[in-house]
Amino acid sequence: MDSTRNLLAVARGAADADLLLCGGRVVNVFTGTIETADVAIAGGRIARVGAPATAGAKRVIDCRGRFIAPGLIDAHVHIESSLCLPAAFAAAVVPRGVTSVVTDPHEIANVAGVAGVRFMAEASRGLPLRVIVMAPSCVPATPMASAGATLTAEDVAALRRDGVAHGLAEVMNYPGVIAGDADLLGKIAAMAGRPIDGHCPGVSGAALSAYAAAGIGSDHEAVTPDEARAKLAIGLQLLIREATNARNLDALLPVITPQNSRRVCFCTDDRAPGELLESGSVDEMVRRAIRFGIDPVEAIRLATLNTAEYFGLGDRGAIAPGRHADVLIFDELQNPVAACVIAGGCEVARDGRLLDPAMPPPPAFAALGRCAIDFERVSFRIKAVGERVRVIGSLADQLVTEHRVERARVVDGFAEADAARDLAKMAVIGRHGGAADGRGDDQGGGNVGLGFIAGIGLRRGAIAGTVAHDHHNLVVIGVDDRSMHTAARAAARNGGGLAVAEGETALAALPLPVGGLMSDRPIDEVAAAHAKLIAAARSLGSPLGDPFMAMSFMALEVIPALKLTDKGLVDVEKFEIVGLFV
Amino acid sequence: MDSTRNLLAVARGAADADLLLCGGRVVNVFTGTIETADVAIAGGRIARVGAPATAGAKRVIDCRGRFIAPGLIDAHVHIESSLCLPAAFAAAVVPRGVTSVVTDPHEIANVAGVAGVRFMAEASRGLPLRVIVMAPSCVPATPMASAGATLTAEDVAALRRDGVAHGLAEVMNYPGVIAGDADLLGKIAAMAGRPIDGHCPGVSGAALSAYAAAGIGSDHEAVTPDEARAKLAIGLQLLIREATNARNLDALLPVITPQNSRRVCFCTDDRAPGELLESGSVDEMVRRAIRFGIDPVEAIRLATLNTAEYFGLGDRGAIAPGRHADVLIFDELQNPVAACVIAGGCEVARDGRLLDPAMPPPPAFAALGRCAIDFERVSFRIKAVGERVRVIGSLADQLVTEHRVERARVVDGFAEADAARDLAKMAVIGRHGGAADGRGDDQGGGNVGLGFIAGIGLRRGAIAGTVAHDHHNLVVIGVDDRSMHTAARAAARNGGGLAVAEGETALAALPLPVGGLMSDRPIDEVAAAHAKLIAAARSLGSPLGDPFMAMSFMALEVIPALKLTDKGLVDVEKFEIVGLFV
Repeated sequence: MDSTRNLLAVARGAADADLLLCGGRVVNVFTGTIETADVAIAGGRIARVGAPATAGAKRVIDCRGRFIAPGLIDAHVHIESSLCLPAAFAAAVVPRGVTSVVTDPHEIANVAGVAGVRFMAEASRGLPLRVIVMAPSCVPATPMASAGATLTAEDVAALRRDGVAHGLAEVMNYPGVIAGDADLLGKIAAMAGRPIDGHCPGVSGAALSAYAAAGIGSDHEAVTPDEARAKLAIGLQLLIREATNARNLDALLPVITPQNSRRVCFCTDDRAPGELLESGSVDEMVRRAIRFGIDPVEAIRLATLNTAEYFGLGDRGAIAPGRHADVLIFDELQNPVAACVIAGGCEVARDGRLLDPAMPPPPAFAALGRCAIDFERVSFRIKAVGERVRVIGSLADQLVTEHRVERARVVDGFAEADAARDLAKMAVIGRHGGAADGRGDDQGGGNVGLGFIAGIGLRRGAIAGTVAHDHHNLVVIGVDDRSMHTAARAAARNGGGLAVAEGETALAALPLPVGGLMSDRPIDEVAAAHAKLIAAARSLGSPLGDPFMAMSFMALEVIPALKLTDKGLVDVEKFEIVGLFV
Repeated sequence: MDSTRNLLAVARGAADADLLLCGGRVVNVFTGTIETADVAIAGGRIARVGAPATAGAKRVIDCRGRFIAPGLIDAHVHIESSLCLPAAFAAAVVPRGVTSVVTDPHEIANVAGVAGVRFMAEASRGLPLRVIVMAPSCVPATPMASAGATLTAEDVAALRRDGVAHGLAEVMNYPGVIAGDADLLGKIAAMAGRPIDGHCPGVSGAALSAYAAAGIGSDHEAVTPDEARAKLAIGLQLLIREATNARNLDALLPVITPQNSRRVCFCTDDRAPGELLESGSVDEMVRRAIRFGIDPVEAIRLATLNTAEYFGLGDRGAIAPGRHADVLIFDELQNPVAACVIAGGCEVARDGRLLDPAMPPPPAFAALGRCAIDFERVSFRIKAVGERVRVIGSLADQLVTEHRVERARVVDGFAEADAARDLAKMAVIGRHGGAADGRGDDQGGGNVGLGFIAGIGLRRGAIAGTVAHDHHNLVVIGVDDRSMHTAARAAARNGGGLAVAEGETALAALPLPVGGLMSDRPIDEVAAAHAKLIAAARSLGSPLGDPFMAMSFMALEVIPALKLTDKGLVDVEKFEIVGLFV
């Protein structure tokens, strides 16, 4: 109450502002216009926008000749994909003017359940980035893999009750929603009245009506303009996504019209640390939208007011009295690059750098998830019980795979990798400590799924990692068992990570001690280590831009056609586990 | 859950719809386009919008050649101004396609407090009209009148907690808000995160920033385009009002642009029963907007999606799966006149008439407010203690008055009305049973305020009524004390009402037994009785279009310049009670 009274006094000009942005050209997302005005800030909020006031200010930033826009909002991002904690993620995006993100802590939830969700919320406190946490809706993705946790409708309700979760994150099990699955409807009901995000690639017609009728409010999986238009028409908010591994911006910008633009937002979904540092976040999407020909104020609105309104975040998304003083100050209307960023009323970044780069210590994370594998009991040997094997045909830059059948290379009664044919061996080792359930091979206390994969391009050695959507078991791809063991052990060390090995030698590693998903180091260190890993994999023959990201989706049993989990090969089209030998 | 599962089955085409709107041209407020589509309805909700489905329907309405729009929403209305209960109000607006209203039960709250607010919510249950109740924010308006109740911040919080109130209704005490009044900020805080409606006539500049910074989200008092644009620019939702006594539509339609239109809604605020029946509600505003030149889809959006989005009512405002099946079916895009209205999935009106006009019995209302005046102790005699008196100079069609000083007509030591000079006597009699507090004359157990008024035009007799904003005490205006007594007694009978009298004869009366504000009769009866009252007042000389509405604002002590309450004459500019004689 006292802070509000002071805010009003500053608004009236009866008290000094904490900070005055003086003489800038304010991007007004309500009217679509730009007006020269002073912006007075007090207690972290905007007090007044308008003519200069009689009262003074403790600090003044001269904004003459510059533009003042609301801080940008990423409508949907998995922070874990940056391989960083929220603080380090913030260090990459806040200096670019992204001051709020809506996050789905889906990855850590698959590893550590509700505790993982709460951890992400706690690890986001006190940052210059406002992190709106959504409750993951589909943990685990299916019963065909061993995840580290299960999130129930009651968990979702508790996360809402406790103020941790703002809404329900992308409901990926769209066939389940459309069919009226009780568990999913229960989760949606637990978030009634709150934003419920969707994920329905390629869904159309009556099925799309059913998906929307269940209460889903958005989608970020549209790939073609027609798909995007159909989703807008049925009432879904269109979150245009430009992720490291799924680029939809260029295809979907032509969909935006003055009539529908209020229903469109920007999101990044998954961005690798290197891309965050080099290209940025939704700020890059805004610039590209302007280059495409969208009016700059409209482009900024797509990443500010629209997102705030869709998510019911009336406290941000505009330069207006009462809202959080999250501000992006820039020089060229046609190319908004943050010269200065205000978050919560404080200048936090200048010229693309945080003024205080010190990362706050994260909450305790040692108990988040497990990576306790008894490697003495793990074997990658595949006894040949036939001549032809199913092979995961991975495709460059795609999450879908081909379901191939090829002749096995059999040596001494065992099926082996065949680098000459780009046929690597792949293993998924349960790391969450659940007992083996007789699917896959029962090894090391959990399941181990074994198979073959083409398209990774390794000629020697192996790569391994504990980032494997969505269950995040330990996945290994290699051309010989010894390298696979070395890589797997290196990746599993200290709670998880990514590694490259050849023979007995670990060539490179990136420890991800936070649930096996995130580093506790600054993002530039993480990006550098990540680059080294990719270089090491390249030295072993893989031509892929990011073989680790490719690998992380080869274990995702909800995207067609053939995938491998710790329980074995999954024929996604049949939605069942199938044998390796045919 | 079962109803949702059935909804999804209907959406998929796996179960029969309850109702199928077949082949109509659907107004899509998301995309701004019109598409021919079937609309399948189940369990009161829209299940599917799109191509004809394989499954059938229990009932089909052939909509070929017709347009299908979402039911309209009135963004702000005092239902009490219709002099009718919600059921009778609904009978006037629902057949016109208005299926939701956001209401501020401010009048009944001034009479009966929280019980009045709860009554309005209860009286709205089960109607074909969805009534969203906002918690009144300024009860009483000031301490310079005796209201029937006080609403505290704790009351507001309780109304929220109990699910009665959706948000905070127009915060009329804008000087208090701007100054940081603790009680008002407490009420706003009690509704944090919910819609907080404003009311700030003529406020601009730094004061407008302060008002918005307090958390106010809207305003419906803009009169000029510049005022409206300034309010839009500061982030207030612009509710354009067209009330019986305050007509702003023509002036403000030119303000709407494609850039700002999402921030604009339509509302009626106060409409007399006759106008509701003859002209309608926001449906009339939509038609006039189209005639003005606004695109019909945009005009419909102003009274549907925009209002739903501003108020966070994601369950309505569009023809889209999952939303309430509240539908307006009409023939001409350029002139939307309801041919058929669906509410909650049922056809409720056709060709402007409710299919089932029977009014449900209202909840018990006898205990709402009081009108127990001991008329034996009430006297309208004014002892002349000077020669010159203050006179309320009422102005045609305006709520503001002039503060005049005129020579008194003194007869036998008493100041009397002087019809020759259009100088009537006016009395405001406290009816809420509070003890007199020594202001005004202590008569009849409460206060009686006495004064003179010009501009009503009565040449004989008197008019009286218990509708007197905001405190709703009994107000009487007449040219002789005997007529005033007769009119006052007639108005006070049975809990309150409006009356016209001459000498000992009551010429016409409209009983308003619900809190002295509302009839329990159908709206056509109320409108007819209301017309008779006005005719009777006209027979006594008053040339005003509606002297009762004029009278009802002559006791409102927050609108300049001079008003009369039960505590005496109020100099509104000085914000204090002043003597009658100068």
